[in-house]
Amino acid sequence: MKKLFLFFTIIPFIAIAQNQDSVFIKKISDDIFTNGKAYDLLRELTKNIGGRLAGSPQFAKAVNWGKQRLENLGADNVYLQECMVPHWVRGAKEKVVITEQNGKKINISLEALALGNSWGSNGKPIVADVIAVKDFSELEKRKDEVKGKIVFYNYPFNPTYIFPGQAYGESGAYRRNGASRAAKYGAVAVLVRSLTEATDNNPHTGTMTYNDSFPKIPALALGLYDADKLWRIATNQKVKISITSFAKFLPDTIAHNVIAELKGTEFSNQYITVGGHLDSWDVNEGAHDDGTGIVQTMEILRVLKSLNYKPKHTLRFVLFANEENGMRGANKYAEEAEAHNEQHIFALESDNGGFTPRGFSLGMNSEKIAKIKTWANLLKPYGCDNLELGGGGADVTPLQRNMQTPVAELRPDNQRYFDIHHAKSDVFENVNKRELLLGAVNMAALIYLIDKYGL
Amino acid sequence: MKKLFLFFTIIPFIAIAQNQDSVFIKKISDDIFTNGKAYDLLRELTKNIGGRLAGSPQFAKAVNWGKQRLENLGADNVYLQECMVPHWVRGAKEKVVITEQNGKKINISLEALALGNSWGSNGKPIVADVIAVKDFSELEKRKDEVKGKIVFYNYPFNPTYIFPGQAYGESGAYRRNGASRAAKYGAVAVLVRSLTEATDNNPHTGTMTYNDSFPKIPALALGLYDADKLWRIATNQKVKISITSFAKFLPDTIAHNVIAELKGTEFSNQYITVGGHLDSWDVNEGAHDDGTGIVQTMEILRVLKSLNYKPKHTLRFVLFANEENGMRGANKYAEEAEAHNEQHIFALESDNGGFTPRGFSLGMNSEKIAKIKTWANLLKPYGCDNLELGGGGADVTPLQRNMQTPVAELRPDNQRYFDIHHAKSDVFENVNKRELLLGAVNMAALIYLIDKYGL
Repeated sequence: MKKLFLFFTIIPFIAIAQNQDSVFIKKISDDIFTNGKAYDLLRELTKNIGGRLAGSPQFAKAVNWGKQRLENLGADNVYLQECMVPHWVRGAKEKVVITEQNGKKINISLEALALGNSWGSNGKPIVADVIAVKDFSELEKRKDEVKGKIVFYNYPFNPTYIFPGQAYGESGAYRRNGASRAAKYGAVAVLVRSLTEATDNNPHTGTMTYNDSFPKIPALALGLYDADKLWRIATNQKVKISITSFAKFLPDTIAHNVIAELKGTEFSNQYITVGGHLDSWDVNEGAHDDGTGIVQTMEILRVLKSLNYKPKHTLRFVLFANEENGMRGANKYAEEAEAHNEQHIFALESDNGGFTPRGFSLGMNSEKIAKIKTWANLLKPYGCDNLELGGGGADVTPLQRNMQTPVAELRPDNQRYFDIHHAKSDVFENVNKRELLLGAVNMAALIYLIDKYGL
Repeated sequence: MKKLFLFFTIIPFIAIAQNQDSVFIKKISDDIFTNGKAYDLLRELTKNIGGRLAGSPQFAKAVNWGKQRLENLGADNVYLQECMVPHWVRGAKEKVVITEQNGKKINISLEALALGNSWGSNGKPIVADVIAVKDFSELEKRKDEVKGKIVFYNYPFNPTYIFPGQAYGESGAYRRNGASRAAKYGAVAVLVRSLTEATDNNPHTGTMTYNDSFPKIPALALGLYDADKLWRIATNQKVKISITSFAKFLPDTIAHNVIAELKGTEFSNQYITVGGHLDSWDVNEGAHDDGTGIVQTMEILRVLKSLNYKPKHTLRFVLFANEENGMRGANKYAEEAEAHNEQHIFALESDNGGFTPRGFSLGMNSEKIAKIKTWANLLKPYGCDNLELGGGGADVTPLQRNMQTPVAELRPDNQRYFDIHHAKSDVFENVNKRELLLGAVNMAALIYLIDKYGL
């Protein structure tokens, strides 16, 4: 009887609360779709600043822009958090040329980009025979042929995965570790098929890592048409290639996370973080990666101020430095949080592109996931009710790792992402305004619910 | 006890069947993502033929192309179904110019497109004062001011609807009926704010209808920048505009539906139809509208042949004529089906753009919807498990209306559609290959399930 009584008293209470929440979330949505600034902010960031690799003058410019915009949006305070970042530079345009085919001199240029954090050839051509392999297993079988050669990995981006991120994870091993795996057997450089199934020939850069035990040889990505062409030639003929790359590291340099706060009215020393990464690759405008995460973060601040929402917890809007080739900004943020014994109840990131949102990937225990799932019906009208265990984004993971902070990441539709990811086509024109704003709506809704009910 | 027995014998049976289905649908998906031809076929249709309004030479070219391609894909038979279609022609480029502002001569061109099925000004300029109204209610209030003027409807495309199709439905009344509503009070022409919230200035055409009781005055759509500009000026100043449109009707002409069949092995006189519309507007390539529906239809035929699937029912792959400005192809198809007493168990259409699919809109009774919902878990891995009551597409609706055929329509993500819908930006480059193919995967899966289990 008691239980029944509880049932009848609690259910209407929950219903009323959810109705209030649904009304407030509709206000968030209406305000964002009517007055949203994310799209204009993205135009500023991509068109006025453009590519902004950590350590570059463009990144410093983006930091100033971000600070000023967050101040204009009415944050209680905005500050910069200094961190040292790797200072990798591409230098002049890299060149990859097929110079000889079966002993005959030719001159076929291939579309290529040095991988991020790779060392170049000091601007001098490296000319060598090519050994084309499909994967590491073929490399191992043919390791005795590798010495003095350029290894070309043509591992395909599997089109049959419905979630293309899975193909990216799989083929990513060649970009990340291909150079040292080949250098171990005496290779002088590597070429990697770009991690994409785009219908164009744009090469896709991205970070790579050397194993310090082996020589740090140049590593470059090839566009798909040219990867296919090279594969056709090099798998049955003797091919010489000339690679010239100017990539190098300068000494580590200073960069900054940009942090804005809305002070909590009840639990001002408990933090909810939302953010994206301000840095991008140098060869594009960093529109989907991760300009959209940056301006969605700003949009959430804007809409909460516009609706005169007073958060219970302190909300932090963070533009992280150096996600692409070092993670130094995110690590710094987590270190400082730990050093100051900050209590972080939740951290949310958007770094999967500004496409139509489908849900949130949740990095937290099952009890908290169950709590978030009770809000699925509130997010469903906005298309974002896929709420499943998964990782948070790269920039909130250090908080989770160091301080067990529950984390999450926006999960937009993934079909188009790897067509433009880390390629020159990641530009403002490829972002759709409504898709971008709808992501901000759902992120703001989740922040609101967690701020109101805790986690 | 008996019930329990039934439970334990039926459940494993269903589980085994669903497992077989899941394996077959995975084969469909893998084959489409590996060997799919839809994207290449779309390139042919959009780049080699382009815009193809019913009655135009381009439409006739598209019919030949469609017939040949369906034959190449291995249909058991392919035939043309003749129908008469309206033959509307735009003629030379329309002109809309602001010629006078508060008595001062000026010359500001506005981006405009004659609406489909509108009559032009016979190529001679109509010059008149503008009356700018937000909606029909304002028109009615100011009806005494309308005589001899050009009415400009600036009804906005509501950005707060999460499903933009809702805004299209609402503002569509101005495009469809605005001319006669204004002609009733003596207007000499109408300008309509384009049905879009695109971030560009492209005007969006689309069909309109006259009420025969009133003069058939010219009706044109304005791009959004120019609609905003005209609204700013015309709401507080006297503005004259000159409109020149060459639009007219020629006598009705012959066109064709293209129909391909895979003969049923068990119920060859029971039909399952899948299709899209082959015609498009004249000002673009008809890529999303509805080139994608056409090539998805072809892709389903391709994959079923490739997997050597022998359907129980006769499958019909139909490229409908004249959806945009007459519906004559779809009406003809349904009339013929009725005249020959054909038994149609299901008809599916794709005419909402080739974006990432989210589900199917189902036009059928609740019992059949419940049956389809039992397959939600089979479609979920492909993102298409939103299975709700709704209409079928325009081209299958006559079957439903005349013969109570259960119908459905693919429901892709809707956020980008109205940015390009009926505008010059509806081109091949704005279609994403994976999104297009994923639609075909889900359509093929649904056709397979209905063919196997009936409906």
